[in-house]
Amino acid sequence: MKQTSWPSACPLPDQERSLITLGHGAGGQLSRDLLDEVILPAFQNPILEKKEDQAQLMLPSTRCAFTTDSYVVHPIEFPGGDIGKLAVCGTINDLAVGGARPYYLSTSFIVEEGFSVSSLQKVVTSMANTCHDTGVQIVCGDTKVVEKGKADQIFINTSGIGCIHDEIKLGIDQLIAGDHIIVSGTLADHGTAILACRSGFEFSGALLSDCAPLDSLCQLILEEGKGKVRCMRDPTRGGLSSSLFEIAADSRLSMEISEQAIPVRREVRSFCELLGLDPLYIANEGKLVVFCAPEASANLLKKMQDHPLGKNSQLIGKVSSMAPGKVLVEGLTGVKRLLPQIAGEQLPRIC
Amino acid sequence: MKQTSWPSACPLPDQERSLITLGHGAGGQLSRDLLDEVILPAFQNPILEKKEDQAQLMLPSTRCAFTTDSYVVHPIEFPGGDIGKLAVCGTINDLAVGGARPYYLSTSFIVEEGFSVSSLQKVVTSMANTCHDTGVQIVCGDTKVVEKGKADQIFINTSGIGCIHDEIKLGIDQLIAGDHIIVSGTLADHGTAILACRSGFEFSGALLSDCAPLDSLCQLILEEGKGKVRCMRDPTRGGLSSSLFEIAADSRLSMEISEQAIPVRREVRSFCELLGLDPLYIANEGKLVVFCAPEASANLLKKMQDHPLGKNSQLIGKVSSMAPGKVLVEGLTGVKRLLPQIAGEQLPRIC
Repeated sequence: MKQTSWPSACPLPDQERSLITLGHGAGGQLSRDLLDEVILPAFQNPILEKKEDQAQLMLPSTRCAFTTDSYVVHPIEFPGGDIGKLAVCGTINDLAVGGARPYYLSTSFIVEEGFSVSSLQKVVTSMANTCHDTGVQIVCGDTKVVEKGKADQIFINTSGIGCIHDEIKLGIDQLIAGDHIIVSGTLADHGTAILACRSGFEFSGALLSDCAPLDSLCQLILEEGKGKVRCMRDPTRGGLSSSLFEIAADSRLSMEISEQAIPVRREVRSFCELLGLDPLYIANEGKLVVFCAPEASANLLKKMQDHPLGKNSQLIGKVSSMAPGKVLVEGLTGVKRLLPQIAGEQLPRIC
Repeated sequence: MKQTSWPSACPLPDQERSLITLGHGAGGQLSRDLLDEVILPAFQNPILEKKEDQAQLMLPSTRCAFTTDSYVVHPIEFPGGDIGKLAVCGTINDLAVGGARPYYLSTSFIVEEGFSVSSLQKVVTSMANTCHDTGVQIVCGDTKVVEKGKADQIFINTSGIGCIHDEIKLGIDQLIAGDHIIVSGTLADHGTAILACRSGFEFSGALLSDCAPLDSLCQLILEEGKGKVRCMRDPTRGGLSSSLFEIAADSRLSMEISEQAIPVRREVRSFCELLGLDPLYIANEGKLVVFCAPEASANLLKKMQDHPLGKNSQLIGKVSSMAPGKVLVEGLTGVKRLLPQIAGEQLPRIC
């Protein structure tokens, strides 16, 4: 005879099982269930599973890099990625461009009440897969839930710790006039993919985010350009122009780039022309801009082009002292013009 | 003759100067202005001022603690603190209860379009003051802005790194039946202060959040209880009950506490009685629960009571193996009852 079982002490209506409620963020049994059923199984590792209020780590060295980013991208899924992949790649990349090997990430979710548990599951799976591909571990986390209408589906913060080899010296203060500027591939792929996806444009299928973890490409660059790499950036929000403006301002040097040398995919170029956007100002999520000594650039470029994430790398210009703090663009006719700074960006909530 | 000056390249209407716009989160000039005018001046330190994509740190040891929390407290100002102070204290406390000395924090803001720059300034000043009091530095950060109605004023994530002395061994796995349980002061002060403030109760003036950084109290406990302290928690969301349930479940031991021994301020008790709330389930933001060997508890309690943040410390119970995974409360009549687990919490968005 089939045994009749008692209902569990606190039976939940079905809806509470499939949608995130305020209770999931309140630190009680529902919070623990969410942790045990959704989050820990995805990120499983011995540090996280200790479930202490903090992760306890043994780092390989005391010279570290530390970074943080909150991700509020809209929509949360887009061609080439989703908010989970973006949240892992973005923070890995911020560590990697500082010459660090990324080791550990934290993750903190702010979830809107009514978001579905299955969507959360999808996001954490995407994060876990990206971690798996890079060998990085998520070792601590937090989940908060806010009332419906007080957030937009899900926001994710990831912070990261990496370690930097003693020999590595990167930074804006290492730049010298004459240094070469290389980008690791086509620009504006991420921003245009998001925009096309958001507005439901017909040819959105051809526009794909470049969202990718750049740690292995950065390691290759540091090995091949030993002592000759000055600094690196991943030109995300504000695009390449924003990275160049920042570096020009902080180094008191000028950045001279050639418009013709800048790689942009044909579909992206058409899309930008159609909407009057400039690819230089549009976000990337899987590209580097690398500053190196001129004698190292030819070999470095070749090696970068051999890497799957750098195959469209191009030398796009050089650092000079001609117009300190400015960015100069040489157009098709050979005339140099000042690149104008824009106050905001062409596109909000891109990452 | 007074010289007529050209308007700046991109003049901003006054409103854009005093309210946060989407442009402030877009990585362009407005983002840089916000950083230079509001954020960097508050948190000033040489690491942050390098403005690299990641902070470069030299840690004092390779044995580290790493933690993260997002703060979504509503309202953002309350008697005894604000979201800024809370965001710094909460993360410091999560490091400190792991036996770590907190060194570095990251901070990431998600701001709702239309939030005032002066309110942001107030929040970062509050964060900076709390950091100053504890010697902790904010070394990296991020600001995102979302459209009006897509967040609630401001959410803050802080992540933190601390270092742990080689001799320190804390953790749920260190607990033994017979260990004593101490709390460092009155319970439920934070949660009741928030609730009173939110609902505009008349006697809200008497209810004050206990929000405080517990690093110095934790260091004192570790020194005085050398080798005899098993583990510590700061009972925040879900209150003391949540910490005890977690530890009972993960250690497969039972927690036995005496209702009479639990310190609760008179005003908090009245407020809870009025609303039918149980102080054991209400959040604290400046209290510890400490598990130690029985022979160490008398001295430890005395030393804790000599510390300004521990003066109302009380021995409230002990660990046993009587009912593994359960929390038992001895009432005024001496009868022991099982403390029931609640699914969510009595109060959302408490931290």
